[in-house]
Amino acid sequence: MKNLIIASTSTLCGEDYLEYLLPRLQSHFKDCKTILFIPYARPGGISHEEYTNKVCLAFAKINIRVLGIHEFENPVEAIEKAEGIFTGGGNTFLLVYELYKNEIMNVLATTLKNGIPYLGTSAGSNICGPNMQTTNDMPIIYPPSFETLGLIHFNINPHYVDGELQSKHMGETRETRISEFHQFNSVPVLGLREGSWLEANGDEIILKGTLSARLFRYNQTPIEIESGSVLNLFKC
Amino acid sequence: MKNLIIASTSTLCGEDYLEYLLPRLQSHFKDCKTILFIPYARPGGISHEEYTNKVCLAFAKINIRVLGIHEFENPVEAIEKAEGIFTGGGNTFLLVYELYKNEIMNVLATTLKNGIPYLGTSAGSNICGPNMQTTNDMPIIYPPSFETLGLIHFNINPHYVDGELQSKHMGETRETRISEFHQFNSVPVLGLREGSWLEANGDEIILKGTLSARLFRYNQTPIEIESGSVLNLFKC
Repeated sequence: MKNLIIASTSTLCGEDYLEYLLPRLQSHFKDCKTILFIPYARPGGISHEEYTNKVCLAFAKINIRVLGIHEFENPVEAIEKAEGIFTGGGNTFLLVYELYKNEIMNVLATTLKNGIPYLGTSAGSNICGPNMQTTNDMPIIYPPSFETLGLIHFNINPHYVDGELQSKHMGETRETRISEFHQFNSVPVLGLREGSWLEANGDEIILKGTLSARLFRYNQTPIEIESGSVLNLFKC
Repeated sequence: MKNLIIASTSTLCGEDYLEYLLPRLQSHFKDCKTILFIPYARPGGISHEEYTNKVCLAFAKINIRVLGIHEFENPVEAIEKAEGIFTGGGNTFLLVYELYKNEIMNVLATTLKNGIPYLGTSAGSNICGPNMQTTNDMPIIYPPSFETLGLIHFNINPHYVDGELQSKHMGETRETRISEFHQFNSVPVLGLREGSWLEANGDEIILKGTLSARLFRYNQTPIEIESGSVLNLFKC
């Protein structure tokens, strides 16, 4: 019985870190006194300690203690014993590199399939799909594979923006990039806008937040999915 | 005696494909009746044939014939016998994947080090540095390595944009991404703005075009390099 929250972003413009999600996280992690934080994605290159401290401050507001996985001698055991797990955003290449290097990709997938509550934001959401190939990040390090947890049957493109909101200077639109991905891959991709998240309970996946999401399927015209929709109903 | 033009982009806003570079290409490729085109990066997923046709039309204006490398049975031989070579933009992961798959990464490096005139735009410029790790592209395919031609001693970040020109919706600025790269790599990175290009003649590398470029070096404050500068003078 999977129990996942897969969010596009950690922070809405002008808000504190995780602020918009905290009420939901209080119920999501209601049985957890402590959660395990995976800081490997290191946004802006900050250290594991700095990143974990930031997360501690946010979860303190809902009386949950946070331990960074880097504090454990045995990261596999840390995952197996966790009451809840959060993987934060940053660089997806670095995150995936570290998950393989520390040999926890498989145990993380197994643990989450068994129902330990999980939160992923941005890079931590990217890894929930079959592969990390629809990340927006720069390939600052070479991971041994692009395959990820496969907890859901489609990929996430977090921080999704529509073409018209994108500066002319930024090159290809997100839609063009995802369409290039579909030249070589048949995995569906969900463009998840800022403030949107998915809730996966067992096999049901529901879109939450106020905005719609954009679903890209191989050889099909992209469609908008309204908030509240069950993703499984869209054959993808 | 290397003889390279390494351009940020193929097309300036409102102009035809390669239009701004054509006068320079006429002298650059003056001894070539035919050039070899490498269409592997397939922008927007277009076919090798479509992409090569587009390039043929542009080079026809300066009376140069274009052959696509996909038209040759033996791509290694095609490179060894080329009078001039052009690698176009598109997806850098795909380009590097194909260069390795067709076993031409090494022969291309050797040929260009020997002085065959070369033009790279965007992805075709990314591959001139030691690695492709400062590309802006989506990892739509897994290449066997991120290492590239190493014709120049620094990486390119093409289509470079400054933070303030970037939409709030686009996530990290380019400068933040490159700074994350420098957490794990010491290779310098040159942010090459639209309309800028490098000319590498022998060991001398000069910045051309009207704009300055931004040089990022490991553990140093980024600096602006004026057009006309010799890059080698900046110890990097």
